[in-house]
Amino acid sequence: MLTSQLLPPLEAIPKFTALRQRYQAVRDQTADLCRPLLPEDTVVQPIIDVSPPKWHLAHTTWFFETFILKDHQADYQVFHPDYAFLFNSYYNSLGSRVNRADRGTLSRPPLNDVYAYRAYVDERIVHLLDTLGATGSEVPAAFAGLFELGLQHEQQHQELLAADIKYILSTSPLAPAYLPAPAPAPAPAGSGPALPPATWLPIAGGNYRIGYEGPGFCFDNEQAPHEVYVADFSLQNRLVTNADYLQFMEAGGYRDFRYWLGEGWELAQQAQWIAPLYWMQHAGAWYRFTHHGLQPLNLAAPVTHVSFYEADAYAHWAGARLPTEQEWEIAARRFRPAVAAGTFLESRAFDPQPLAPGADPAQCHQLLGDVWEWTYSAYHPYPGYQRAAGALGEYNGKFMLNQLVLRGGSCATPASHIRPTYRNFFHADKRWQFTGIRLAR
Amino acid sequence: MLTSQLLPPLEAIPKFTALRQRYQAVRDQTADLCRPLLPEDTVVQPIIDVSPPKWHLAHTTWFFETFILKDHQADYQVFHPDYAFLFNSYYNSLGSRVNRADRGTLSRPPLNDVYAYRAYVDERIVHLLDTLGATGSEVPAAFAGLFELGLQHEQQHQELLAADIKYILSTSPLAPAYLPAPAPAPAPAGSGPALPPATWLPIAGGNYRIGYEGPGFCFDNEQAPHEVYVADFSLQNRLVTNADYLQFMEAGGYRDFRYWLGEGWELAQQAQWIAPLYWMQHAGAWYRFTHHGLQPLNLAAPVTHVSFYEADAYAHWAGARLPTEQEWEIAARRFRPAVAAGTFLESRAFDPQPLAPGADPAQCHQLLGDVWEWTYSAYHPYPGYQRAAGALGEYNGKFMLNQLVLRGGSCATPASHIRPTYRNFFHADKRWQFTGIRLAR
Amino acid sequence: MLTSQLLPPLEAIPKFTALRQRYQAVRDQTADLCRPLLPEDTVVQPIIDVSPPKWHLAHTTWFFETFILKDHQADYQVFHPDYAFLFNSYYNSLGSRVNRADRGTLSRPPLNDVYAYRAYVDERIVHLLDTLGATGSEVPAAFAGLFELGLQHEQQHQELLAADIKYILSTSPLAPAYLPAPAPAPAPAGSGPALPPATWLPIAGGNYRIGYEGPGFCFDNEQAPHEVYVADFSLQNRLVTNADYLQFMEAGGYRDFRYWLGEGWELAQQAQWIAPLYWMQHAGAWYRFTHHGLQPLNLAAPVTHVSFYEADAYAHWAGARLPTEQEWEIAARRFRPAVAAGTFLESRAFDPQPLAPGADPAQCHQLLGDVWEWTYSAYHPYPGYQRAAGALGEYNGKFMLNQLVLRGGSCATPASHIRPTYRNFFHADKRWQFTGIRLAR
Amino acid sequence: MLTSQLLPPLEAIPKFTALRQRYQAVRDQTADLCRPLLPEDTVVQPIIDVSPPKWHLAHTTWFFETFILKDHQADYQVFHPDYAFLFNSYYNSLGSRVNRADRGTLSRPPLNDVYAYRAYVDERIVHLLDTLGATGSEVPAAFAGLFELGLQHEQQHQELLAADIKYILSTSPLAPAYLPAPAPAPAPAGSGPALPPATWLPIAGGNYRIGYEGPGFCFDNEQAPHEVYVADFSLQNRLVTNADYLQFMEAGGYRDFRYWLGEGWELAQQAQWIAPLYWMQHAGAWYRFTHHGLQPLNLAAPVTHVSFYEADAYAHWAGARLPTEQEWEIAARRFRPAVAAGTFLESRAFDPQPLAPGADPAQCHQLLGDVWEWTYSAYHPYPGYQRAAGALGEYNGKFMLNQLVLRGGSCATPASHIRPTYRNFFHADKRWQFTGIRLAR
Repeated sequence: MLTSQLLPPLEAIPKFTALRQRYQAVRDQTADLCRPLLPEDTVVQPIIDVSPPKWHLAHTTWFFETFILKDHQADYQVFHPDYAFLFNSYYNSLGSRVNRADRGTLSRPPLNDVYAYRAYVDERIVHLLDTLGATGSEVPAAFAGLFELGLQHEQQHQELLAADIKYILSTSPLAPAYLPAPAPAPAPAGSGPALPPATWLPIAGGNYRIGYEGPGFCFDNEQAPHEVYVADFSLQNRLVTNADYLQFMEAGGYRDFRYWLGEGWELAQQAQWIAPLYWMQHAGAWYRFTHHGLQPLNLAAPVTHVSFYEADAYAHWAGARLPTEQEWEIAARRFRPAVAAGTFLESRAFDPQPLAPGADPAQCHQLLGDVWEWTYSAYHPYPGYQRAAGALGEYNGKFMLNQLVLRGGSCATPASHIRPTYRNFFHADKRWQFTGIRLAR
Repeated sequence: MLTSQLLPPLEAIPKFTALRQRYQAVRDQTADLCRPLLPEDTVVQPIIDVSPPKWHLAHTTWFFETFILKDHQADYQVFHPDYAFLFNSYYNSLGSRVNRADRGTLSRPPLNDVYAYRAYVDERIVHLLDTLGATGSEVPAAFAGLFELGLQHEQQHQELLAADIKYILSTSPLAPAYLPAPAPAPAPAGSGPALPPATWLPIAGGNYRIGYEGPGFCFDNEQAPHEVYVADFSLQNRLVTNADYLQFMEAGGYRDFRYWLGEGWELAQQAQWIAPLYWMQHAGAWYRFTHHGLQPLNLAAPVTHVSFYEADAYAHWAGARLPTEQEWEIAARRFRPAVAAGTFLESRAFDPQPLAPGADPAQCHQLLGDVWEWTYSAYHPYPGYQRAAGALGEYNGKFMLNQLVLRGGSCATPASHIRPTYRNFFHADKRWQFTGIRLAR
Repeated sequence: MLTSQLLPPLEAIPKFTALRQRYQAVRDQTADLCRPLLPEDTVVQPIIDVSPPKWHLAHTTWFFETFILKDHQADYQVFHPDYAFLFNSYYNSLGSRVNRADRGTLSRPPLNDVYAYRAYVDERIVHLLDTLGATGSEVPAAFAGLFELGLQHEQQHQELLAADIKYILSTSPLAPAYLPAPAPAPAPAGSGPALPPATWLPIAGGNYRIGYEGPGFCFDNEQAPHEVYVADFSLQNRLVTNADYLQFMEAGGYRDFRYWLGEGWELAQQAQWIAPLYWMQHAGAWYRFTHHGLQPLNLAAPVTHVSFYEADAYAHWAGARLPTEQEWEIAARRFRPAVAAGTFLESRAFDPQPLAPGADPAQCHQLLGDVWEWTYSAYHPYPGYQRAAGALGEYNGKFMLNQLVLRGGSCATPASHIRPTYRNFFHADKRWQFTGIRLAR
Repeated sequence: MLTSQLLPPLEAIPKFTALRQRYQAVRDQTADLCRPLLPEDTVVQPIIDVSPPKWHLAHTTWFFETFILKDHQADYQVFHPDYAFLFNSYYNSLGSRVNRADRGTLSRPPLNDVYAYRAYVDERIVHLLDTLGATGSEVPAAFAGLFELGLQHEQQHQELLAADIKYILSTSPLAPAYLPAPAPAPAPAGSGPALPPATWLPIAGGNYRIGYEGPGFCFDNEQAPHEVYVADFSLQNRLVTNADYLQFMEAGGYRDFRYWLGEGWELAQQAQWIAPLYWMQHAGAWYRFTHHGLQPLNLAAPVTHVSFYEADAYAHWAGARLPTEQEWEIAARRFRPAVAAGTFLESRAFDPQPLAPGADPAQCHQLLGDVWEWTYSAYHPYPGYQRAAGALGEYNGKFMLNQLVLRGGSCATPASHIRPTYRNFFHADKRWQFTGIRLAR
């Protein structure tokens, strides 16, 4: 059973019909993301970080089957007795499973069977909601929280799907496009004015509240809300752009150990990094592999697909530093960014977008959407954090070491999935997500 | 250009129409093998030894494009400029290529594009043969030899396809069947009489000729024919069966280092081998994963999917040894096995078959087909062996170290692809091919 | 050149004669630690974390040669032109060097040459100090700071030496003693009363100052002093003992994933951890390898040689948590532990000692010395931290990721080397240092 | 018990006094080889192939303790109960042991203890021989064979010692000399006439006897003697020289895959081989690390420290091939090389020597001593080979796969340890032994 800590009471308890509507919308979004894929695209795992889309489709379904149907639907028959072994991600509480590294070795079950699995579970979920709703009773808070967790979980996998699909397609020298390039095409490389230099926005130090406090949903890792002290600091009003980052590259940033953390420098040498992931140079010009195939570099767009090591080295070179997650959250409370202003998954842009040239230099832009912003904060439990009992206690808590917090969501995040208190986390070497840089000092 | 050493003159120079007929038959067989597969099955590479079926389909096509069309068809336009990078297997002469270990990371080009590639090349090959045949001229020997090499090459990949498909499907706990099980089903495990003990067939020592001498096609590694001396020896009249091998297992064969070569013992411990590949025990009975799904062990059938290490350990335990390739070939010349008596790819049995209970104990059975027989002979060049010049010099010669020779073909070998002089070769640890054991002393 | 940030002005500028005295005392301590070793003991590197004692002897000497003599002694001739390559640890600024993993492959230079190197540098350092002192001038602050860094650096290596020597001797089944066991021997395993349960000491939350603020020496990572807010918390009044830890073990702590962080659980399974490093069970009783050979477990002594993962799992099992480094420092300021009360290197006990049975339960004991206490704080830069320019900028700053802070010093720390603000740091999996556990909640 | 197959009756059964004399001479030679070493040199293991000299000293002693004293000396007390665990090399029959890869992690027992172990065993062996000799009885054949095996075993380790010491000292940038360079020093690089081109010596094909047939000692792998057929072939009358090999290097031999076996080419690329082991280029001239430190390349000397892959690539480039072991042995019987003409361990040259300029071109030179000659023959059992029962059955038989036979002994082989039938064996990638090249065609 889930503690209230993990799933605080939702603001307005939804009606069952609303729940059903939301469920179908979220589930449709997942299927919609996979629609441009061929069956062949849905089974490969080029690196361990990337899971096959077929696996995402099934795993998110298994989540509803395991945490909702098994516990709330009397006499529920699982779709297939082996699917728990195949599609459990990392829950030791729920038994043995396919090793993460082996997800790409499995051609079966085929994609069609996975879609049948989705349909089977969807039908039973809808039936369950309808049955519960028919009694006229309110949605119980515990059920509502658990159900919302399933939806948020699926949204997390939508974001992973967007990043994984990009990586999968990028391995081919054919540089296939997931979707046709949008019109009008981005400006040619080097052409057009890059953005003017960023401005610094000062924020006064003092004691602040951090963490999620509202009603509504949050993950357990945003809890408990607590007080922190921070000193005066400044944030840049916009993200670091490709033009900015090119300057770092051209100044020899990838060849000078002085900017780098020790482990980052070793990795960069060994992996022969000379640019962000997906960049390639052709006839003197830089291109990037995108969901729309190979595209010229847009200088004004935020740089993305950089590791923490690169973000930190860039900041050193620029005479600045990365913010802490507390600083970022304080700034977000101060500047109250509108979700509508950011680029999210629903845009199907799949790429962070340049700031409008005339943007107000006194505002802090691009806080939500576009790219996840690396912070120099370890992903550790907040004071008072408690792991839930049971399998869901493994959802977040056991990962709270050796990873960094990222904030703000990206162009691959569903718009309804982001909050200023949201804590994403990756190891410092990861580059396949839409990660980017905002400077502090 | 190919030396005559690599491709000796064919017995009867075929007419172009016959060439065309044979080409289409071979190419159809490849496509037929892949027909039961789903697109998902054709892209995964669960271990480095196993190539995705899509890759086999394309690589064999690339072979004809590269070695026939590019050199013999004026103004030939390749189907796609990137395919040489994607589908070259190991020819350094032909430039850089996808690493062998990365073949399973590529979802693109999709299977349909690969079929289109096959159709494109097939059409142009047929056109070329028709054009050449239209002049009424005979097929030039060099062209015939090269063309035959393309066909034999494709047949080798048919055998690999059969083994790779089995491995790919075996990785799933669903134990999917490639084809429905044949009727009547094999006898239940443990039931029915196993074969009576094998008999020993003595062969007198002396000087013998070894290697291919006829007209017709052979690979360069079967050349040059040469003389050897062997001492008196005996071969068993049949293959080692599952019943025989079970005795070894039950006698602790996998737990007693004394039977094993040092490197084999270390590997067996580290990989925790306790039975041949694909065996699994359930409720006290042994089953095997086959092309027809999980099947009870047929005690009378030849054991297969054993490494050289296991074959050698079995022989030690049995107080015997493995034959040399020379002994095997001498026996094959002496007993003149009929291809018709063996189980080959065309049977679609995909499993070695038991010897008929009343088989003549004075005959040497199962020499051709059913399983490749491990010999205790290193795959080294024969005296007088010469690598061909150019890319085809890389076909066989560069692999002549650290591998063992296997003889006789298997149930996955096309029947027209085997000869008593045929030298197959694998590293001692490989188990995914249809490999088996015949004892000598 | 060193910034003042890295090396703040020392409290009382020492006279040159005092500097000389301190230099000789520190250098003698290093040699004294190596005296019981055989030449054979000084060259091996059983794991990458452990450096050969010969290397420590030379590297600390190279530090003085490089940072003092080369810059301050006119016409200084290095002892040997290859020693910089051999004995530079990790300073990219100072050129290429032997890989860390290869330190144990080098038998040459022999130990005697390294002692000659020490004598050569010692003589020149003393000469330099005497020459500078002869002018009657005061020791310039920058020189004093740099010189003190050399001494503190050597003390850090004394601690590493103590831990590395233990590991080196432990690899032998002969279980050799570095020093004879002290008399009286520790109480036999299981005998004698273990300590009574620890008490909880509450500390009020609020804003506190953190970081080094005095005159005198500190490392750059203790800078800059800054304000933090912490909530109310409690610390245990003593360290977790072997008796405490045995309860965790006997309750199945190493077999229950629920207590563990994900990466820790995987490591513990793969490495087959079932107890702290150096523990072994014999005839039902637990023993520990120590500097005095194999010794029965003293139940009342603090547990040591545990990884962060084990410390954290223990805390979970005990219904508590590890403190943050801020909490630890606040407690240390509050309870003002006396260095004299702790067990340090000078005791030559090389093992944490039990708390006296009648110790005041209202005091916080064992804060300094005995074992380094894991905190759940990432080793990140403090606000306002600046890397020094030049090679010394590599001393600490580049390691500030993926490690945890440990506080308080251990039985292997020189007593003059510890401060309440001292930040030690190791990766979460390390166990060969004298690391231990204090609980918070 | 040892079968007669493994240890055939010795020609003249030696008297016990002669046995004692020979024992002392062999044992002294081992100690003499280690005399120039420092204790530090005797414990390191820079690569897995290289064992610490201390280990060789102890392991050879353990061999006599285990196979002679334990079985033939009543009430024998082992020197130390842990030494069997520490110094057993690879005999599964004799229980668990230190992993081969971990021999360099053990500083204890110290070198002096190992010398005490040698003295202890020597005294008891001498006592045993004296006691047995005092009865006036002849040495029983089985005992004589077993004792001789102990001596030959120790001689094998003398050769390994010579190669391992070289490797150990080579890892230091100090390039220490094991012994002072002999006078006169070798001719400077490039100076002096290299040898004239080798001549080809034809040998008629036919049936020949192979394997050891005399009385006296041989290893079991030289048994049983048997008949082979070989075709006409030619051998070169001398070894390939450094001058010859330089031509290959300068012709781009390390950059052209066409000369190489596939696995060799991959290894050479990955390991970045550009010359034999121990070669280094300085100011345009080539030098070699030797037992006498860094020395200019002597063009006339035989090339050494090449892998099989390099030897085979060289042969391809030169339009020739490597001999088989049968060809080599037939040539050796034909040309009856004198041991006295070769360079062996007793010379303390530790380097193959140039052929005298006026050497007879019709003779086959340098067959014995100087360098082990790679053959293109797999190290497989001879027909009729039988592993001995018991632990000694593990001496040779279990290694008979994936290695190549080398013939003729080297400058590190004791002169009394070589025979024309002697089969040495290494994996194809090994370079740290004194391996070289003779061409055949």
